[in-house]
Amino acid sequence: MRDFLPADKARRERVLAVIRDRYRAHGFDEIETPVLEEYARLHAALGGDNEKLAYNVLRRGLDADAVRAAASDDAVDVAALADLGLRYDLTVPLARFYASHRGELPGVFRSIQIGPVWRAERPQKGRYRQFVQCDIDVIGDASPRAEAELAVATLDTMDALGLEGGTVRINDRRVLDWMLDRFGFADAERPGVLITIDKLDKIGSEGVAAELRERGATPAAVDAFAAFLRRPQTMEYHPYGQRQIRKALPDGVPDGFVAQLVGVGEAVAAARGAGEIPLVFDPFLVRGMGYYTGTIFEIAHPSVDYSLGGGGRYDGMIGRFLGQDVPAVGFSIGFERIVDLVAAAESAQTEAVVLVHDADVPVGELVAHKAALIAGGARVRLEARTKNLKALLDRAAADGYTAFALVSAGRADVELKPLS
Amino acid sequence: MRDFLPADKARRERVLAVIRDRYRAHGFDEIETPVLEEYARLHAALGGDNEKLAYNVLRRGLDADAVRAAASDDAVDVAALADLGLRYDLTVPLARFYASHRGELPGVFRSIQIGPVWRAERPQKGRYRQFVQCDIDVIGDASPRAEAELAVATLDTMDALGLEGGTVRINDRRVLDWMLDRFGFADAERPGVLITIDKLDKIGSEGVAAELRERGATPAAVDAFAAFLRRPQTMEYHPYGQRQIRKALPDGVPDGFVAQLVGVGEAVAAARGAGEIPLVFDPFLVRGMGYYTGTIFEIAHPSVDYSLGGGGRYDGMIGRFLGQDVPAVGFSIGFERIVDLVAAAESAQTEAVVLVHDADVPVGELVAHKAALIAGGARVRLEARTKNLKALLDRAAADGYTAFALVSAGRADVELKPLS
Repeated sequence: MRDFLPADKARRERVLAVIRDRYRAHGFDEIETPVLEEYARLHAALGGDNEKLAYNVLRRGLDADAVRAAASDDAVDVAALADLGLRYDLTVPLARFYASHRGELPGVFRSIQIGPVWRAERPQKGRYRQFVQCDIDVIGDASPRAEAELAVATLDTMDALGLEGGTVRINDRRVLDWMLDRFGFADAERPGVLITIDKLDKIGSEGVAAELRERGATPAAVDAFAAFLRRPQTMEYHPYGQRQIRKALPDGVPDGFVAQLVGVGEAVAAARGAGEIPLVFDPFLVRGMGYYTGTIFEIAHPSVDYSLGGGGRYDGMIGRFLGQDVPAVGFSIGFERIVDLVAAAESAQTEAVVLVHDADVPVGELVAHKAALIAGGARVRLEARTKNLKALLDRAAADGYTAFALVSAGRADVELKPLS
Repeated sequence: MRDFLPADKARRERVLAVIRDRYRAHGFDEIETPVLEEYARLHAALGGDNEKLAYNVLRRGLDADAVRAAASDDAVDVAALADLGLRYDLTVPLARFYASHRGELPGVFRSIQIGPVWRAERPQKGRYRQFVQCDIDVIGDASPRAEAELAVATLDTMDALGLEGGTVRINDRRVLDWMLDRFGFADAERPGVLITIDKLDKIGSEGVAAELRERGATPAAVDAFAAFLRRPQTMEYHPYGQRQIRKALPDGVPDGFVAQLVGVGEAVAAARGAGEIPLVFDPFLVRGMGYYTGTIFEIAHPSVDYSLGGGGRYDGMIGRFLGQDVPAVGFSIGFERIVDLVAAAESAQTEAVVLVHDADVPVGELVAHKAALIAGGARVRLEARTKNLKALLDRAAADGYTAFALVSAGRADVELKPLS
C-alpha cells in the first residue's frame, strides 16, 4: 500500500478525469458501492482465487467466549470472527448492486465503476495491496453490440490518454471449451488444464505439455494438444478475420462461434474507422475467472508486453444474486499500469503564481494579494522568503508554478515575473 | 453504507471536482494515503472517541492457537486478532504521511485529502458508516496566515458551490482553557467540563450548569460559570471585532489571544473583500478532538442549523510521529452534508444523444453511428427500440439526454431531434 505525493496524485486524478469523461461520452454511467461488503457475499465462490486474498473485518463487540468458539481444534472459523470484508474486485459488488436496484436502472445498464480494491498479496515488485480498478460493464444486452461498445470505449479512452495503437486480444470461453473437448480432455480435468494453458506465454508449448502430463491429464488429449501447438501457423494471428480465426483453431469449429468473433471485430473496426481490425484472436487466452461464459478479452499496447486490462462475458453471475439470469459483460482497465505509461507532464492550463513574501507583511495584505490573483484565474501558493531565493523558486517551478512575485509590506501592487 | 446510483454519483463527482479545483487554486496540493493503517497507529489515543468506532482488519493466517490466546478470561485482545484498521479520519494518516515524507515536501506544506473514512456508528438518520471527508491542512506555519488561508479557501469553495453567505465560527482552545481557569475549574476536571460545555447549543445554559453539578465539578466554579452565562450580552457576537470578543469573555483575557482572533478575522475580510468580517466569535465552541492546541473553527451556512465542517490547530500531533513538533492546522468539510445542499441540476454542457435502433441494425453500423457522434463531441447511449417509444424517450430525458435519433438498418445518416 502506497502514499501518493502531490505530483503522482495530480497525475492520477488527471488520468481518472480522462477515463471518466470518455466512458461517459460512450453512454456509460458511474455508480459507487461501499468498500465493505458482507463476508458471505465475498466468499460465495464468485471471486476465484481472490477470495483467499480478501481482507476480512473483525466483528465489533466480540466477547471472549465468541472468540474461543471460533477456534475449534485446529481450524479457525473466520466467518465467526469476521462479518465484513474489503472488496477484492468491482464485479461482485456490481452484481449485488444490480440485483438491489434493477428497477431504478435502464433496461440495458452501462455502468462505470472507479475505485480501490484490496488483495492481501505477498509483497512483490509492481503489485500493490490497494489498487484502483476502472470497470465498465453492460448489463442486459446479450448481443455482440455489448462487446463492441466495450472494446470501442476502451480503445477510444486509451487514445485520449495518448496510448494510441492499442489492440484487443479476444477469445471465447465456449471456443476454449469446444477445443478442449475436441482434444479429448474430460470435463472434470478442464479447470486444471485451463490453469496450465494460461501459462503458455510464460512456459511455452513444451512447458505446457509437460505440466499437463505432470497433472495427470488424459495422455491422448495432451498428445493431441501438443501436436496442435507444434503447428507453425498457430501463432499467425494477423490480420483478424474469419479465415485467420479458423486457421488458428482445430478443424470443425462451429460457425456460430467464428461468426460472433468476426462480428465483434468488424463492428469495432467500423466504429474506429480503422483499415485493419484492431483485434487479435488468441485461442489460448484464458482469463482466470471461473464465471466467464462467452467472450473474454484483454487490451494490449505495443509499448509494453503485459496486458493493460481485460474482461469478459459473465451471463450467469447476476442470477446468483437476482434469482434470474441477466446477460452481462465487462471490461476492467488496470489503472495502476495505465497511469505509469501516461506522460507525467501537466499541461499548464492556468497560471500558477508563487507569492514570495517578507516576514513582516501583514497577514491581511498577503491573503488579499493572493485572493486577487485567484479571482483572476490563477493558482497561488504563499512562500516565506528564505535566504536562498533561487532554491525556493526552482522548487516552485518543479512543482508546476509558472510565475512569481516578491511581496513587501505596504506595497499595493505585486509584479509578476515568469519562473523559468 | 450506501450505494450511489448514476444521478447521485454524477452530482458527487461534480461537487468534488469544484472542491478540488478551488482548493488547488488556493495553493493546496492533493495527496492520498492508503485506506488501511496499522492498528497500533489508529489506536494511539489521537483519534478520540473515533478510535472505538474503527473497523479492525483480521490478521491473515491466524491459527486456532493464536485465536484462543487472544481470548483470556473475559477480555479480548483485539490487537492480537487485528493488525490493520480502516481509517476513521484523515488527520492521523496525514500526520503519519508528513512524518514519512517531510523531506520531499515544501517547507510549508498545504495538503488536500479527499476520500472515504469509516466509523462503526449505530445506524441513525443522516449518519453513514462510510462517508467522504475533504480536508485541507497547512503544516509548518505557526502564524495566523495559515488560519486565514484555510478560512478563505473554504469560504471561496462554498461560493463556487453556490453556497454563498457562509460564516466561520471561531474560538481558541487557549481562550477556553484560560476561561475555565478563570472560573476556577481544576485542571483534572477540564476534559469532562468541555464535554458538557459542548452541549450548550442543545441543552442551554441551565442544562449545562445542572450537568456540571451532576459531574461533581467544583461548585464555586460552576456557580461562577453559570453567572457568566446568565449575562444577557454573552450571545451578542456580531459584528466581529476586538470590542465584541472582549465583551463575550470574562474580564482580563490576555491581549495576545484577542489580537490573534481579530487578526485572523481582518485577514479573511481583506481577502474576501467583505465589508463585514465573515467570522463569528463563539467562546463556547469546543470541537471534540483532544489534540487541538489553538484556533478551532466551524463553518456555518444560513440555510442549515448545523455546521458544514470544522477544524483547528494541532501543533503537537505530528511530533508524535516525527519526534519533533511541527505546527499544523486543518479544516475538514463535511462532504455528505455539503453535497445534499448543492443544486441537483447538471449543466448540460455537452450534447447527449440517445440512438434508438431497430433490432435488425447490424452491430457495425450502429456502433459506427455512435462513434461518429462521440467524435463530434456528444455523449451517446444506445437503446433498442421498444413498443412504448415515448416511455423510452422520457426515461432518457430524465437521465439528462438532450436529443435522440431513430436508426434503421442500411441508413447512412441519422437525424437528431431534440428531446423535450
